[in-house]
Amino acid sequence: MSSIIFQKVLQASFFSAQTPEQVDFEPAALIGIDPNGQIAQILTPADPAYTTVLQDAQEKNILQCLPPDEYLLPGFIDLHLHAPQWPQAGIALDKPLNAWLQDYTFPLEAQYQDPDFAQGSYQNLVQTLLANGTTTVLYFGTIDEAANLVLAAQCAQAGQRAFIGQVVMDNPEQTPAYYRNSSAESALESTRHFIDTLRERYGQTGLIQPVLTPRFVPSCSDAVLAGLGQLAQETGLLIQSHCSESDWEDNYVQERFGRSDTEVLKSFGLLTANSIMAHGTMLVDANLATFHQQKAALAHCPISNAYFGNAVLPVRKILQEKITVGLGTDISGGFTPSMYRNIQQAIISARMLEDGVDARQKASERGVKNSRITARQAFYMATVNGAQALHLNTGQIKTGYTADLQVVQDPLAKIASSDPAAIFERLMYQTTAQNIQTVFVKGQVVANHNQ
Amino acid sequence: MSSIIFQKVLQASFFSAQTPEQVDFEPAALIGIDPNGQIAQILTPADPAYTTVLQDAQEKNILQCLPPDEYLLPGFIDLHLHAPQWPQAGIALDKPLNAWLQDYTFPLEAQYQDPDFAQGSYQNLVQTLLANGTTTVLYFGTIDEAANLVLAAQCAQAGQRAFIGQVVMDNPEQTPAYYRNSSAESALESTRHFIDTLRERYGQTGLIQPVLTPRFVPSCSDAVLAGLGQLAQETGLLIQSHCSESDWEDNYVQERFGRSDTEVLKSFGLLTANSIMAHGTMLVDANLATFHQQKAALAHCPISNAYFGNAVLPVRKILQEKITVGLGTDISGGFTPSMYRNIQQAIISARMLEDGVDARQKASERGVKNSRITARQAFYMATVNGAQALHLNTGQIKTGYTADLQVVQDPLAKIASSDPAAIFERLMYQTTAQNIQTVFVKGQVVANHNQ
Repeated sequence: MSSIIFQKVLQASFFSAQTPEQVDFEPAALIGIDPNGQIAQILTPADPAYTTVLQDAQEKNILQCLPPDEYLLPGFIDLHLHAPQWPQAGIALDKPLNAWLQDYTFPLEAQYQDPDFAQGSYQNLVQTLLANGTTTVLYFGTIDEAANLVLAAQCAQAGQRAFIGQVVMDNPEQTPAYYRNSSAESALESTRHFIDTLRERYGQTGLIQPVLTPRFVPSCSDAVLAGLGQLAQETGLLIQSHCSESDWEDNYVQERFGRSDTEVLKSFGLLTANSIMAHGTMLVDANLATFHQQKAALAHCPISNAYFGNAVLPVRKILQEKITVGLGTDISGGFTPSMYRNIQQAIISARMLEDGVDARQKASERGVKNSRITARQAFYMATVNGAQALHLNTGQIKTGYTADLQVVQDPLAKIASSDPAAIFERLMYQTTAQNIQTVFVKGQVVANHNQ
Repeated sequence: MSSIIFQKVLQASFFSAQTPEQVDFEPAALIGIDPNGQIAQILTPADPAYTTVLQDAQEKNILQCLPPDEYLLPGFIDLHLHAPQWPQAGIALDKPLNAWLQDYTFPLEAQYQDPDFAQGSYQNLVQTLLANGTTTVLYFGTIDEAANLVLAAQCAQAGQRAFIGQVVMDNPEQTPAYYRNSSAESALESTRHFIDTLRERYGQTGLIQPVLTPRFVPSCSDAVLAGLGQLAQETGLLIQSHCSESDWEDNYVQERFGRSDTEVLKSFGLLTANSIMAHGTMLVDANLATFHQQKAALAHCPISNAYFGNAVLPVRKILQEKITVGLGTDISGGFTPSMYRNIQQAIISARMLEDGVDARQKASERGVKNSRITARQAFYMATVNGAQALHLNTGQIKTGYTADLQVVQDPLAKIASSDPAAIFERLMYQTTAQNIQTVFVKGQVVANHNQ
């Protein structure tokens, strides 16, 4: 045991999800992180080697002991976020989706052609996300490579794990002239170029990876969807888009293709085990069966869905059907950078799906029974399922997993129950950036509250 | 003008609600606060006296200038909060209401017989609320006078405006033996004693005021409800309780009395212009008409209602009908001390009421059309309507109003739109305790982020 070389040993009580219903608690564990940022060893106080490893780490000055009111959790994995929309988070959410896109969102995204603007905005975003405990993000960028490289550089500099998609949108009927790929060919060419550049700069398996990113079916031509499907097969890259995200979008695809969004994405080779599709509020049972069959993942964005989704994704059922469903902030359809907030809203929205909303209906007819989810299930989505969707060996505190972690202080430790189940719920409901103490990616400190 | 003596002059850009749809913005105003903590004068830069007052305040060293990324807002008024439940905020929210009450809530409330426990818990709560921008709270305490006096002392010491209710619950069928008033007579006697003690200590019109507080109809005997109604008439005090808060509660009252909760409360003299009733998710049109007629107010608690309310209060309709409806956190049916969070959830829940939740229904049949509310309406509820419900001359930044205020920093000032409407929405959606800089009650600093 003593032959393992650590760069750091944490003495910490930690929570880590095993299954949607089981969150493990380990008090005062020793977590040894190796020079590659992997968790190489976890020892509990009952383990014979515990004292030796503790003393050894102390002597080598690589031991970090958490105070008794702080807990270690896996870092969160945000499966859906439009990076350029950060400056309008919380703005114009009372507009209809189309006005919100045309009058606010597209003009803002087009501003990222200015590299100074991109730099300031992305720096603020990446730092804010890390301070909120988010260690990995699946990002939508803009259609401009230069701006996407600025985002990549900010993530690399700050040490955040990032999957970055250069957005493809070439359908003149659904996109403005000032913010559109001029043709399917140029969109595919520019996507290839972005992939090559990103891989040159950050390597094939580094912290920063490219993702194929058709904005959504309405904004893409058939040709570009087909081309991206082919590129997905050639490159084996992850694919992100939106699927059945609202009444309008779902109907649009149905009218244009005579088939559901799910079937259309599948037919273009865009619904595979590498796919992460946002929202899905309008998916019917047959669509969910296709997701299961294709091993495609869903990014549930409960806050955004309240504004633009027109219904609640039935997450409990989807978890039961063993479809991989993670959580996303969907900035700026969702207003908050906090995955804690999305964990909370996922629970609230599931509860509202179960109980219904309109008191004029009979209680028995008001909602969809057995829809509620627990804090444990939401936490599982934000960690284990996020990692699974991105094929990452993280999201749990386990030997052999990457040390993407967050240290969270319990703000009510002095006055509230010290039962681990109560502490866990309290952390899920009470944590804000203010009590996230330290965040690690690959064992390196990437955010520190006291700095 | 120069004859007014100020204790403090703020130079600040401020937002203040005029109507549910109109939020005024005044850039770089001078707000002169008199020695009684009242706003005695507001000057805009166009005013001839502006420069003189500015210079004068500077010379007297009573000028506080806000930096350009900070804004002044009225402090928030929390219309419903169970103070003793703070240590369990976020715990066991997946339990049914009855289990939540019997297994968690009543045992916790009974713990406040220990004055040390009460002291630690209440101190933490009051400071947390102030740090979140809440200047006035309508509190439910416990049935124990000693603990309620600890809460009062904490509020007085911290400088928070507080209405404190000694809870009455004497119905043996709905309350546990270890936490119950032994009889209607003793409950009324103890309420009278609490009122007298509080008035002795804090005066008839001070920051700390007593409130009549039947827990809710199910936990009260007819005799105690009648006695409290009489006491309400005698004393002219405010009255708080819960009304039609869930299917269970609504049905219980209907079965016991053969009438609605609203009518029962009215018949006992507990639904008057002095009443603030929490929740109301099950109120039907006739009940709302009674609220309007009686000039009684509602405390909308959107987060709590998602867990225990079984439906969404139709706030937009209630605002249109000019019933006074404010906002409450309902700790710990609601998990957060933040009124910002409740503003956000009020908007989200109204949107979900409008759109419905179950995608299997047709879009046209899914929700209740025209139910959405704006950030402006939610802000109006948290400030103007809160003040109106409590008959307070605050909740707006206006000459003659009490200076209960909060200074909030715009976290995205450097990268986002500087249009006042956008700033206002951003403040409503992005503010956490972390960017609330200073909080004033009656012109005195009661929370300071940098301390």
